[in-house]
Amino acid sequence: MSDDVKINRGLKGIYFERSGVSHIDGAKGELLYRGYTIHDLAEQASFEEVCYLLIHGELPTEAELAAFDADLKAARDLPAGIYDVIRSCKTGHPMDVLRTAVSALAALETGSAEKGEAGFLTNGIRLISQVPMIIAAHEAIRNGRDPVAADKTLGHAANWLWMLKGEKPSDDAARLADVDFILHAEHGANASSFAARVTVGTEANLHGAMVTALSTLAGPAHGGAAEDVMKMVREIGTPDKAADYVKAKRKNREAVTGFGHRVYRAEDPRARHMREGVKKLGDEMGAPEFYQILEGVVEAMKPYARHGLNVNVDFYAGVMYQLHGIPMDLYVPIFAIGRMPGWLVQCLEQQRSNILIRPLTLYNGPEARSFVTLKDRT
Amino acid sequence: MSDDVKINRGLKGIYFERSGVSHIDGAKGELLYRGYTIHDLAEQASFEEVCYLLIHGELPTEAELAAFDADLKAARDLPAGIYDVIRSCKTGHPMDVLRTAVSALAALETGSAEKGEAGFLTNGIRLISQVPMIIAAHEAIRNGRDPVAADKTLGHAANWLWMLKGEKPSDDAARLADVDFILHAEHGANASSFAARVTVGTEANLHGAMVTALSTLAGPAHGGAAEDVMKMVREIGTPDKAADYVKAKRKNREAVTGFGHRVYRAEDPRARHMREGVKKLGDEMGAPEFYQILEGVVEAMKPYARHGLNVNVDFYAGVMYQLHGIPMDLYVPIFAIGRMPGWLVQCLEQQRSNILIRPLTLYNGPEARSFVTLKDRT
Repeated sequence: MSDDVKINRGLKGIYFERSGVSHIDGAKGELLYRGYTIHDLAEQASFEEVCYLLIHGELPTEAELAAFDADLKAARDLPAGIYDVIRSCKTGHPMDVLRTAVSALAALETGSAEKGEAGFLTNGIRLISQVPMIIAAHEAIRNGRDPVAADKTLGHAANWLWMLKGEKPSDDAARLADVDFILHAEHGANASSFAARVTVGTEANLHGAMVTALSTLAGPAHGGAAEDVMKMVREIGTPDKAADYVKAKRKNREAVTGFGHRVYRAEDPRARHMREGVKKLGDEMGAPEFYQILEGVVEAMKPYARHGLNVNVDFYAGVMYQLHGIPMDLYVPIFAIGRMPGWLVQCLEQQRSNILIRPLTLYNGPEARSFVTLKDRT
Repeated sequence: MSDDVKINRGLKGIYFERSGVSHIDGAKGELLYRGYTIHDLAEQASFEEVCYLLIHGELPTEAELAAFDADLKAARDLPAGIYDVIRSCKTGHPMDVLRTAVSALAALETGSAEKGEAGFLTNGIRLISQVPMIIAAHEAIRNGRDPVAADKTLGHAANWLWMLKGEKPSDDAARLADVDFILHAEHGANASSFAARVTVGTEANLHGAMVTALSTLAGPAHGGAAEDVMKMVREIGTPDKAADYVKAKRKNREAVTGFGHRVYRAEDPRARHMREGVKKLGDEMGAPEFYQILEGVVEAMKPYARHGLNVNVDFYAGVMYQLHGIPMDLYVPIFAIGRMPGWLVQCLEQQRSNILIRPLTLYNGPEARSFVTLKDRT
């Protein structure tokens, strides 16, 4: 009960493990996955390549990628019971339904309790393919439609848009979704990945760790930024009103959504890779005004860039989802699709050199006191 | 990427928060809930009183306890959809099914997304009553029986045994289950409570935090000890073989299950409160040999007590469950029934002065390297 103990609130600045997966330099605005800058990956790699890179540590050869892609496609399959589970709770928030379905997969799939490296890998690959299926199936079921069957000729991102919308996306639209997933794939010891590691630390199964990650991502302080940006865009309404909106916010000392990040002081290196694609998609969809509103906000925020208030990755993502007609309550589930490989690889790292993660709280409650029996209490 | 950074593996010895809920003195073997020693609570209080104490900080008066008990009993109710969810995954491990059902409750119950103090309290009280119902309903359904309806005239522990077995427990049996829940109700920043706090830290809902706690408790390094003890008892077989069993284990430098604890160097103060009750229950059930095997193990372990190898809380619990004919895969779910108020109050504490919990990993992966396009990789 000593008072000279240091309390590390939020565990800020506390290192709990080494990790070879991603490197974030918040001061310089740099992000590496396995040594490769996010810029090269967003410009030149596919989500499938990035998954392989994150999981195996090296970029795949053509043969390795083909085999990995075949595994991902083979895993585009859900046991029938999952559709029953989704139907049973179809009116819930998509994040609650997704978490419930992933949890139920642990009960429904053979091998879900296997915990070695091989078990985690098999279950992880399955879940990377199943999570977008669950989200699309729930969206169909809650709208009274039958789920769209996965198309195994399409890549991960294109198949996701196909299952969700029931129409094949253009190459540009598919590539933008692909880039969105790449940019969200991994980001160090963020709260959801860290919580998943705590779950793995008790030697729980991978499904349990993924459920923990989903529970934690669901909090608006973690996964909710894209939705907030879209709400801002709707509130602004038309591009000509963006400057006044920013001026009023700054005058009232309120934050402008989509700017700044806990880790990055410089520009969030992921943001720029959505920008051009969102502009193009808006033109393709005949709705350029969302992008124009965003650019109006960026322009009006320029004076504040020197205070570290740069655009973050979530700034453009919400508009992309809006252009596809995706309802706002699916934005966090889409974040989860992208983050799946990051969660998996952090669970793999934890499992390889496992330890129970159990910090301490310092007691500040009452001193020891005498019990009073029920009838004598007043 | 500096090497002089300190890595706190397992966050051992790191304080992340103050907490007024429980105080553990591992060296002295002391445990306080809100200032009251676990001995007084295990001997004189009911689980309902302990729930109230943990949640509200003070022991209830008779009127306060009556109102709280009425709330708990009113919450003995599950939406019909939960039975569908349980049926959909009835063949799974009970811990996977329990976690799935709690997750589904978030989607099925009104008010589950409410996050203030009042929302957490309402949802927490509901879940304290619903978790034993889910476990009992799953046990019935997987055995082809209809779930037993809750009996609102019975206390929390007696009603749980009633729903599980379909027969009213004796007063002694009900009290032993009550004590078991009291002893498991709260234990500081253990992995499941800590993980739940990480989930609350992102402003997620209480159901999500409880799902995280369940995922994390499911790992055998956290919640699996009672099951391990029962396996040992079965392996030993008869009381006369206990001494030889211990001798062989010690000779091979293997741990004897149910002895020692990460936090306690002295005796686990919770253990003694199960001992007499388990003996009595064995006599009542006409099966005294399980208790006799345990006592044989304790006797043979006495020389090692000075090394901190004392009986821990899980040593007697498994035998109690066995005497009730409860299958081993329900032991961890039963732990969860007891821990519910502890998880709730830790989530309440976290929510009251919330902060994102996000530690750091130190990058030890490849230095920045140049991207090679797919066709040029070898």
